[in-house]
Amino acid sequence: MNKVAIVGTGQTKFSKNDADVEKLLFESANDCIKSVNNYDSNTIDGVLVSTNNNSKYLGAILSETIGIQPKISHSIEHLCSSGTNAIISAYAYISSGMLDMVLVSGAESANNPGQVLEWDKSRGNLEHPIYWGTMLTKSHKRKFKTTEEELAIVSAKNHKQAMDNPVAYSNQPRTISEVMNSKQITDDLRILDCSRSCSGGSTILLASEEKAKTISDQPIWITGIGQKNTSASFSKNNLEEIESTKIAANFAYKMAKIESKNIDVAEVHDAFSVCELMAISELGITSNDKSGEFVRNLFNTENRMINPRGGLIGAGHPLGATGISQTIEITKQLQDKSDKRQISNAKTGLIHNMSAAGTSSSVMVLQN
Amino acid sequence: MNKVAIVGTGQTKFSKNDADVEKLLFESANDCIKSVNNYDSNTIDGVLVSTNNNSKYLGAILSETIGIQPKISHSIEHLCSSGTNAIISAYAYISSGMLDMVLVSGAESANNPGQVLEWDKSRGNLEHPIYWGTMLTKSHKRKFKTTEEELAIVSAKNHKQAMDNPVAYSNQPRTISEVMNSKQITDDLRILDCSRSCSGGSTILLASEEKAKTISDQPIWITGIGQKNTSASFSKNNLEEIESTKIAANFAYKMAKIESKNIDVAEVHDAFSVCELMAISELGITSNDKSGEFVRNLFNTENRMINPRGGLIGAGHPLGATGISQTIEITKQLQDKSDKRQISNAKTGLIHNMSAAGTSSSVMVLQN
Repeated sequence: MNKVAIVGTGQTKFSKNDADVEKLLFESANDCIKSVNNYDSNTIDGVLVSTNNNSKYLGAILSETIGIQPKISHSIEHLCSSGTNAIISAYAYISSGMLDMVLVSGAESANNPGQVLEWDKSRGNLEHPIYWGTMLTKSHKRKFKTTEEELAIVSAKNHKQAMDNPVAYSNQPRTISEVMNSKQITDDLRILDCSRSCSGGSTILLASEEKAKTISDQPIWITGIGQKNTSASFSKNNLEEIESTKIAANFAYKMAKIESKNIDVAEVHDAFSVCELMAISELGITSNDKSGEFVRNLFNTENRMINPRGGLIGAGHPLGATGISQTIEITKQLQDKSDKRQISNAKTGLIHNMSAAGTSSSVMVLQN
Repeated sequence: MNKVAIVGTGQTKFSKNDADVEKLLFESANDCIKSVNNYDSNTIDGVLVSTNNNSKYLGAILSETIGIQPKISHSIEHLCSSGTNAIISAYAYISSGMLDMVLVSGAESANNPGQVLEWDKSRGNLEHPIYWGTMLTKSHKRKFKTTEEELAIVSAKNHKQAMDNPVAYSNQPRTISEVMNSKQITDDLRILDCSRSCSGGSTILLASEEKAKTISDQPIWITGIGQKNTSASFSKNNLEEIESTKIAANFAYKMAKIESKNIDVAEVHDAFSVCELMAISELGITSNDKSGEFVRNLFNTENRMINPRGGLIGAGHPLGATGISQTIEITKQLQDKSDKRQISNAKTGLIHNMSAAGTSSSVMVLQN
């Protein structure tokens, strides 16, 4: 397989306002194009759009609005992990030698579809993700003795970290006490335990090894990829684990020839507080029974290793943009360009993005 | 690049009835799985869905309904050429070595979105494809002296050929006179000049060279791929040509190391009668000024070289399934399994699929 690098990044601000998905795609793509050296519109031969929006032909529309005529353009949808699916599809096009340079642009408006799990009849009327969020939370508390305070620390940490992310949805620090006293939504979830749907656009430019050198001083390499889809319906899941994440991580580590201990910084899919604890456990960074303590220690020592941009809870969750935004954060960390959020000497980073109660997961390893 | 083969095919009947897209995906995927030797659900590591339907997470839903747990699953949308975009994406995953075996399943219900060109503000109220169909027709008549009878022959030929396609939407032969006297829709288009939106599902299974041998006695190889996206809006197009098709064909011929004269059988995107004349010209099979005569000769000699299954006009046009159904036809022709539709001694076949007034095109060359 040919090597594939990330050579450009662009983002819009994440916000609660509704916005045209076409406009968000354009703005983040334009920001991405401006980030590269020696831009030549003729060299981009692929445009992939990641969204849950129902508009059609967005790959062609984005191509026309930014003034390029790619060979390949199309849209990709896989709910909350549409973004990493689009990046990995672009990786395949470049790695196979079919394309040289692919723009991957994800966007979502706050009111877009994909936020309610309409397809899963096994849920009855419990379509909203908070229901599986609360079931996972209840199970984690019971099985691993996780406390409400430990769960609240995830949110307090990610809100705090989001304060240094200029495109984050949240611009308020939240204390542990504020999280624990925020509005109760279900037995086990309060409003500040939940990521928020919002509007936002994120774009990255991927390139072959040969092209990467012409366009970026600091290409970041995708060295590990793992994906797994275990089911579509929550009823098939074991509440105590996210099997798809464990399997995807093992594929990615094997491909990158690393172990979990080599990870310097990670963006993980904290759709709800409990998801961060489960994700870092499935990824092998800690274990479920020690995950609460692990995050408490990060918080107390101001260690931003997990979700430095604020995760989905702090930065917001514009579905189709999320996986791309996570990838941008890890790219900038490995380029030593993360300003106040910077993890010192980050060499190996990880992205974890999942869909629909963890019924599918994508894991990517990036290295500089 | 690793070689990629088509090793299984499955289809539903195309019909005017509304149908659940999940059911069409399942039925055609199930039919595809039954078509292979030594089926083992564990060997399918990718599931790509092609559709304009607004349902989300269909890759995971299809995977669960057919009982597989792939690494990668997602949906792909690019209007009328969603199907070939999904096949070519699967090609990239396999060719790069990332996956071994990918199921590509396309489906559309008759009332699905994607049939009206909402995005193109340059069209004013002329959103329906018949408006660009009529403009291309008017231009072809004026520039190339194409007659109404020659245009009617395209439809009569394709309706006739569809009679021998058991899954076709149309089951009626139509004489040239019937076409020329059918209901007038615009200045230059009658109802029988138009392909019909309909319900239908089509699935193919793609495999790496190593896996292909274990699962098929007659793998058919994808030897050429070309794609091009020139714009999103019709206003940018020259009415006398489909530039994206010409460019895509040249890429595909170069990759397959063939010339247009080597093509034994082709499925081309006859959204309207004039599109078949323009497509076979852009593909280099004939020229625009001789295209009417070329098709008349095929019709008079009962030569099924172009659109043997009846094309979009005869077989119907379930958007997300169309490109896959075209590919199934060429696969079966090269396997000598097309019954009454069979072109004798077909060795090299071509698929041409396009979107939105030809603003993007996919061309694939298959060989046995």
